[in-house]
Amino acid sequence: MAKIAILGFGTVGSGVLEVCRCNAAAIARRAGQPVEVKYILDVRDFSATPDAALFVRDLDTILADPEVTVVVETIGGTRFAYPYVRRCLESGRSVCTSNKEMVATYGAELLALARQHDVAFLFEASVGGGTPIITPMHQCLAANHIHAVQGIVNGTTNFMLTKMKAEGMGFDAALKIAQELGYAETKDPGDDVDGRDAGRKIAILGSLACGRHLYPENIPTRGIRDVTAADMKAAASLGCAVKLIAWYQEGPQGPAAGVEPMLVPEGNQLAGVNDVFNAVLMQGDMLGDVVFYGKGAGKLPTASAVVADVVDALKNGVRIHDSLFWAPSERRPGLLADPMCCARYLRVQGLGGAMLAQLAGAGATLVFEDSAENTAAVLTPPLDAAATDALVQKAALLGGRAALVLKRLAE
Amino acid sequence: MAKIAILGFGTVGSGVLEVCRCNAAAIARRAGQPVEVKYILDVRDFSATPDAALFVRDLDTILADPEVTVVVETIGGTRFAYPYVRRCLESGRSVCTSNKEMVATYGAELLALARQHDVAFLFEASVGGGTPIITPMHQCLAANHIHAVQGIVNGTTNFMLTKMKAEGMGFDAALKIAQELGYAETKDPGDDVDGRDAGRKIAILGSLACGRHLYPENIPTRGIRDVTAADMKAAASLGCAVKLIAWYQEGPQGPAAGVEPMLVPEGNQLAGVNDVFNAVLMQGDMLGDVVFYGKGAGKLPTASAVVADVVDALKNGVRIHDSLFWAPSERRPGLLADPMCCARYLRVQGLGGAMLAQLAGAGATLVFEDSAENTAAVLTPPLDAAATDALVQKAALLGGRAALVLKRLAE
Repeated sequence: MAKIAILGFGTVGSGVLEVCRCNAAAIARRAGQPVEVKYILDVRDFSATPDAALFVRDLDTILADPEVTVVVETIGGTRFAYPYVRRCLESGRSVCTSNKEMVATYGAELLALARQHDVAFLFEASVGGGTPIITPMHQCLAANHIHAVQGIVNGTTNFMLTKMKAEGMGFDAALKIAQELGYAETKDPGDDVDGRDAGRKIAILGSLACGRHLYPENIPTRGIRDVTAADMKAAASLGCAVKLIAWYQEGPQGPAAGVEPMLVPEGNQLAGVNDVFNAVLMQGDMLGDVVFYGKGAGKLPTASAVVADVVDALKNGVRIHDSLFWAPSERRPGLLADPMCCARYLRVQGLGGAMLAQLAGAGATLVFEDSAENTAAVLTPPLDAAATDALVQKAALLGGRAALVLKRLAE
Repeated sequence: MAKIAILGFGTVGSGVLEVCRCNAAAIARRAGQPVEVKYILDVRDFSATPDAALFVRDLDTILADPEVTVVVETIGGTRFAYPYVRRCLESGRSVCTSNKEMVATYGAELLALARQHDVAFLFEASVGGGTPIITPMHQCLAANHIHAVQGIVNGTTNFMLTKMKAEGMGFDAALKIAQELGYAETKDPGDDVDGRDAGRKIAILGSLACGRHLYPENIPTRGIRDVTAADMKAAASLGCAVKLIAWYQEGPQGPAAGVEPMLVPEGNQLAGVNDVFNAVLMQGDMLGDVVFYGKGAGKLPTASAVVADVVDALKNGVRIHDSLFWAPSERRPGLLADPMCCARYLRVQGLGGAMLAQLAGAGATLVFEDSAENTAAVLTPPLDAAATDALVQKAALLGGRAALVLKRLAE
């Protein structure tokens, strides 16, 4: 009988308890032994619930019990989660977490600590919720060099963009619906709509792909606030959807990554990923393209991924880290360089369409013009970051403000 | 240093050698030791090639060498592969294979034999080529009950159906192109176009999902020979693509499975899977829907999946079988029952459209009518297998021949 503890009894933590009970027989068969939740750490009062006896308020109670071999961390954030997870690993417990902020910030350190103490540190649920992404990725990695990753990894913004496209609504209206449905935070939806959540996830996938820690603060991150209903329509006229893409690729100057809304041609597998679904496309040198698709969030899907990690920790322990591992790297200021050279959608406020098209040069196409709003948009020929900046500056000299720039992904 | 042997130096076998060499450093890091191909078994003459020294013609040479711990089987078929794999497992070697025919026919027996001898029997590459499907499936399975699987698992027929849809061509023209491009066999393309290849793959996935062996010969299997350009057009008018779907689901009388062309609504993730790509959708009780997508074949993708299995065998050995396992089952004659109740596209030769629509009853829609050919097609309301048979018989009594029946998948 394996005994585990759950830290934090919120949505995912309570889902872990539910999954462990609902599928107890199957879990026992696969783990080679029954798995029982012995403790739940939470500072709130659960004394009136049927599971009151499981609750403790002090991590020491859990660490003092040698029966507990695996700890699930579902507190979220880093303030409590990070020191707690450190102490669990140092005490010889494997840890399974859904906490992307902690993994994106302290992943390399916690992986090294786990290896040092001969235990596992697993975090499948930190990207894609219940959808298996990290496990197949490091399994693929065994015989592949993954040189690029592109993903729709934030369900809230994908839901909003889907609504905006299907119903011609603007950002504010879509956000309101997402908030009403509980997909977006009411107080501060910024983690989702400004791309920080996606930035943490691509930091994790990028770190795993390149083998050293990428810090979220070095990843250029742009959300979807500037995308309008007119942009969605213009994108459709180009045979594209607008999606918030988190990307990683090996550039000439080392690993590069970003989060930004992009034009995704309808022929690309990511264009058809709608609503709260997530999908991650990986390019392996031997394998070509593979895509993993599923619901990116939700109590039971996410919890089932955490429980699969618990089973993995019980069965395989530290040996997982031969493939699920990356090295620490120094913190440096500044943003990673952007090596992409691709066509860009450029919407400018304050310039006429003919002028903008002329500015953008040979090969540019006028996509739309709204004379009443004095706004126009072009699709440029392939440009790199420097050429795009130069174009934006030329427009500024003529009195035009670049209101939105979207790269176009390949088919 | 781990030493391995490759049985069969065809497309996949030679790919395994290439992957092992190209990504030697990464493979060594993940396997915890370098991996070297020490022997290649093939009856053909490779004495003039740079690797001539590796070739042997007798399995005994390999089995007599205690250095060899993992054997890769890429012969294909069952005549030689099956007895060779048995001998390898019995001698205490782990086996990694891409051979779906052998796994679909003898999977339970070989898994049990491997467990008995404390070695691994792995076959990620047998479904989906290089796309990770079996590994994430049994990883998901650790905390989920998978009750349904639907997949596009044959790249050749998917390429043909994509061509037929995009260019309005018929089956024969599409087959000719597939043969010219090397996607379909020239002599006998039946394994692909009649659905037998897909039947073997769904037998493997279904066995893994339900935990006992499903035999391909019990799985009702229908290919794409009867699908015409007119059907593709009619499907499009219903907002659907026609895809060859291999499906598994738990029915009221136990596991059910089938291979057949189906109408796939454009909103379904499988509708946009085109050309030689494969995709498998799984429904877990906790997880909801997940999809794995990628190239279903090809030398290096498939070989990289075999090599990932080799790494897994070296690292995890027999413990993989706690989740990658199914029990033997008795061979029985007959076909598995079909529990699906869904709308069906029914094309009938020899009946007018009005008559056919009337026959199909309330809720049926006439989809197309070709008076010159005396052919019409309807979309029925949801029907089960018995009601569909009854409808086909009623049409026959009136002189109509049911030329094609396609179930419609859910959105």
